[in-house]
Amino acid sequence: MNAMTEPLLFKQGDRELVSFATHPGKYQHWQLSVDGDVARLKLDINEDGGIKPGYKLKLNSYDLGVDIELHDALNRVRFEHPAVKVVVFESGKDRIWCSGANIYMLGVSSHAWKVNFCKFTNETRNGLEDSSRHEGLKSVAAVTGACAGGGYELALACDRIAMVDDRSSTVSLPEVPLLGVLPGTGGLTRVTDKRKVRRDLADIFCTTSEGVRADRAKDWKLIDAHAKPQQFAQLVESEVASLRRQSSRNGPQQGVSLSPLNATIDEQGYHYRFVDAQVDRERRIATLTVKAPEQSIEATPDAIVAAGADWWPLRVARELDDAILNLRTNELEVGTWVIQTRGRADLVMQADAVLEQHKEHWLVRETLGALRRTLARLDVTSRSLIALVDEGSCFAGTFYELALACDRIYMLDLPDAPDAAPALRLSPANFGRYPEVNGLTRLQTRFHGEPGVIDQLQDLKDSPIRADQALGLGLVTLTPDDIDWEDEIRLMLEERASLSPDALTGMEASLRFPGAETMETRVFGRLSAWQNWIFIRPNAVGDEGALKLFGTGKKARFDWKRI
Amino acid sequence: MNAMTEPLLFKQGDRELVSFATHPGKYQHWQLSVDGDVARLKLDINEDGGIKPGYKLKLNSYDLGVDIELHDALNRVRFEHPAVKVVVFESGKDRIWCSGANIYMLGVSSHAWKVNFCKFTNETRNGLEDSSRHEGLKSVAAVTGACAGGGYELALACDRIAMVDDRSSTVSLPEVPLLGVLPGTGGLTRVTDKRKVRRDLADIFCTTSEGVRADRAKDWKLIDAHAKPQQFAQLVESEVASLRRQSSRNGPQQGVSLSPLNATIDEQGYHYRFVDAQVDRERRIATLTVKAPEQSIEATPDAIVAAGADWWPLRVARELDDAILNLRTNELEVGTWVIQTRGRADLVMQADAVLEQHKEHWLVRETLGALRRTLARLDVTSRSLIALVDEGSCFAGTFYELALACDRIYMLDLPDAPDAAPALRLSPANFGRYPEVNGLTRLQTRFHGEPGVIDQLQDLKDSPIRADQALGLGLVTLTPDDIDWEDEIRLMLEERASLSPDALTGMEASLRFPGAETMETRVFGRLSAWQNWIFIRPNAVGDEGALKLFGTGKKARFDWKRI
Repeated sequence: MNAMTEPLLFKQGDRELVSFATHPGKYQHWQLSVDGDVARLKLDINEDGGIKPGYKLKLNSYDLGVDIELHDALNRVRFEHPAVKVVVFESGKDRIWCSGANIYMLGVSSHAWKVNFCKFTNETRNGLEDSSRHEGLKSVAAVTGACAGGGYELALACDRIAMVDDRSSTVSLPEVPLLGVLPGTGGLTRVTDKRKVRRDLADIFCTTSEGVRADRAKDWKLIDAHAKPQQFAQLVESEVASLRRQSSRNGPQQGVSLSPLNATIDEQGYHYRFVDAQVDRERRIATLTVKAPEQSIEATPDAIVAAGADWWPLRVARELDDAILNLRTNELEVGTWVIQTRGRADLVMQADAVLEQHKEHWLVRETLGALRRTLARLDVTSRSLIALVDEGSCFAGTFYELALACDRIYMLDLPDAPDAAPALRLSPANFGRYPEVNGLTRLQTRFHGEPGVIDQLQDLKDSPIRADQALGLGLVTLTPDDIDWEDEIRLMLEERASLSPDALTGMEASLRFPGAETMETRVFGRLSAWQNWIFIRPNAVGDEGALKLFGTGKKARFDWKRI
Repeated sequence: MNAMTEPLLFKQGDRELVSFATHPGKYQHWQLSVDGDVARLKLDINEDGGIKPGYKLKLNSYDLGVDIELHDALNRVRFEHPAVKVVVFESGKDRIWCSGANIYMLGVSSHAWKVNFCKFTNETRNGLEDSSRHEGLKSVAAVTGACAGGGYELALACDRIAMVDDRSSTVSLPEVPLLGVLPGTGGLTRVTDKRKVRRDLADIFCTTSEGVRADRAKDWKLIDAHAKPQQFAQLVESEVASLRRQSSRNGPQQGVSLSPLNATIDEQGYHYRFVDAQVDRERRIATLTVKAPEQSIEATPDAIVAAGADWWPLRVARELDDAILNLRTNELEVGTWVIQTRGRADLVMQADAVLEQHKEHWLVRETLGALRRTLARLDVTSRSLIALVDEGSCFAGTFYELALACDRIYMLDLPDAPDAAPALRLSPANFGRYPEVNGLTRLQTRFHGEPGVIDQLQDLKDSPIRADQALGLGLVTLTPDDIDWEDEIRLMLEERASLSPDALTGMEASLRFPGAETMETRVFGRLSAWQNWIFIRPNAVGDEGALKLFGTGKKARFDWKRI
């Protein structure tokens, strides 16, 4: 597949697939421009450019294709424009900033499409905040015109919201009164948790379809600042100046080019250089194999930058991210993912050491961010994740994080051949480098009831850990020996694949994030669950439901029972 | 209605209503016995005693009627047996402890019934933990036989789980593999958050339909202790002895009798001595009026005990609790509750002062617990709650908590007659007495972004706060004056009642609990949302869904798409 020319929706045999591979030259909806340390992302949606047929993207409303471009654009800023400290989000339309997700698109979409779309949108917005928090890439929404629903949710993901004080500019979350659904891509949660809007004011705001103008929006903490049209450019400049001072980005003007991954997509799956996703649609199982570098990775700043997008840690992060998105979007019935690693553990450990040594270098820092966000994407993937620590595997450091993201870890025990047996290795990667969306490391989440365990594990860094020791330490779930391995894994996978996919989604969402909550876990675990529920209720999607009837002039008819 | 003889399900005109009023003489399923400081609650379910027709409660499985008895029994222990320090939960059946919610009942129940039933069950179990935390009423599950699903979820709500180590006794959460739904009455959350079971072991446990026997259950932290049958009585005794030492309950052998509330139920609503719920089914609005005491309440320990169940704070708590349950269960379409107070604010303040002065006295302490749990029930009620601070109201101290539980607070402003205008009053009741399920006071939740506000409010204790000041302080939402009041309230209520009930449920669940999470908020906000979703998916309740086909021998057919 050629990312430079292919559309985002394409045919593979008789299947219609979504691709997440794009680049600025292909954008239909966003304009990315960079001037010194400021990037501007201008939303100017091509209303005929919907990813699927059947609706027009009027009023700067978006669909998955618009969000795929935004996801790509943010990665361009991260890697190709390392000098950028502040991103300004602006509108290319008059009197309308962004009116949110396109309602007609939602009306014609399947439940699965809606849920997947919301998850990806959430991840991109979380990614914006993640880059602000970790790499100091700051952002401001420069709101001119109506900023509604998902449009305001995008603004909420920025560090600051500046708004023009004129007659037409308002912010609003009209989902409940207009559509009978929630502001479900973070809106409800960010209003209370990030912006600390008082709950009764939030209640009024979220049940009113008319927008709130600048002065009241500021009083209610819905925005940070406003100015009259004549002074607005100056206000945005001052916001940029203040965010610039908070930014710790310090890369050169020229970054590294994110060359296309050029995945091979065929009936068997999605194939990349270091990542391979084999799909068994009959058994509904995907096997995701991630490979160690083939030799020591470039280890000096100059060599790392020269390797650029081909530097193994960056390439493996991008490939894995793309593979996860492809499997999630295009293989809905493949409910179980087996995660394997292949290659030399010492080379993974060497790569981890380089990442540690140069973690302050701009490109290494951004690469760590890409790995962190990709692992976070795995954490919230609604598929059963099973790691197999088998012969030839290299679950070391960063790669052991892949196993820790899984619901279960099976490790082969070879009691008669301990030297040939697979081993785990711990590195600094496992003790703080890749926090989950709950703010904890995966080891902290795993041992949340036993804080002392982490200290004990710190002492084991670098030494190979075989099955019996790993089991004793709680680092793996079960350790069948070579006599049982094949049957046990086969039966377990068959059994898993036979369970109700809905129940597994709810169960995994609950078990993966015990205890501690953050805004992100609340978005995925609480808000998304409510939205999923509402998205299949007749009050929203029935023939007389609010979402279905939107724009027809007809009034929805509700089953009034409160549940 | 006569609580002594009426069944729990009864006819009112052509409507079928549920009553929550019962007493030990009427129990069909639980046996409550008290010996010194130990109460025993033996579950011995009458399989023909289902609250609705159409299913048999086999294998010690429960329905709403069983839980109504448990809710009552715990209140008997709290008030009638104040010397009790430990409750032992046991089974009256051989080889089966409790097999959880009756599946056939779930199969024939509406979505609303299932959700309401789960919420009430959750609240009763949270209440058990609440009484352990605040009043030192400890509990142990003495598990003999199979303890499955909701049965194990009941055990999880106890402070300790002791289990007999024999061939038939196991614990299990088989909902996912057997029924395609979640262990949704706290199971998933308590396994991870309370018992700190490691996530991969929890994953195995929750996807396996066979139970786990004593030794592995102990290894995985699913239970606390086990013993062989000959030593089991001794183990339970030692658990009781250890819990007794942790208990701070110190009441006399003889408590106060919880006399029946004898509500009048008619077409207009639910009427009590201090609480009145008027129902307007056409407009789908209930008006809940709570009344101040008519004179100063009894203020010495002897007088308080002599007043007993007629002591105003206890009576108002019980009446309000019963009214909330009646409205929630019997008036499903009444989606908006207006909350009013009537009477003399100085008498509410006097009552609050007595509650404060004698808060260590056993009966006052238990009464505070009843008020705390009733307010907590209001917090998680899926109805729009609107407080009206109007003429004749007395939102003082404890009563202001009722307003703080609401989604919005409207307060009448009488700028021309400030002395006649309604006022709020703050008392110690607003600064820690009634923590919400998120562990914060309602004022802390309200001002979670502005911690300094609470200190400022502390200085205002006791002085009347009029509309303009209340608005300035953020204590109320809006303050229409007497010219606008009637129209504004009417329009607001009409508008609210026109919105999608599902969207309001999801929105309110999100806005009411910003930021901080606890196990309880995670049960209500996260686990329940997933369960609600799963409960209406065809994979569970469709003609070929797992819940529908349970017990038929037929295998469920799933739509395999993972969402």
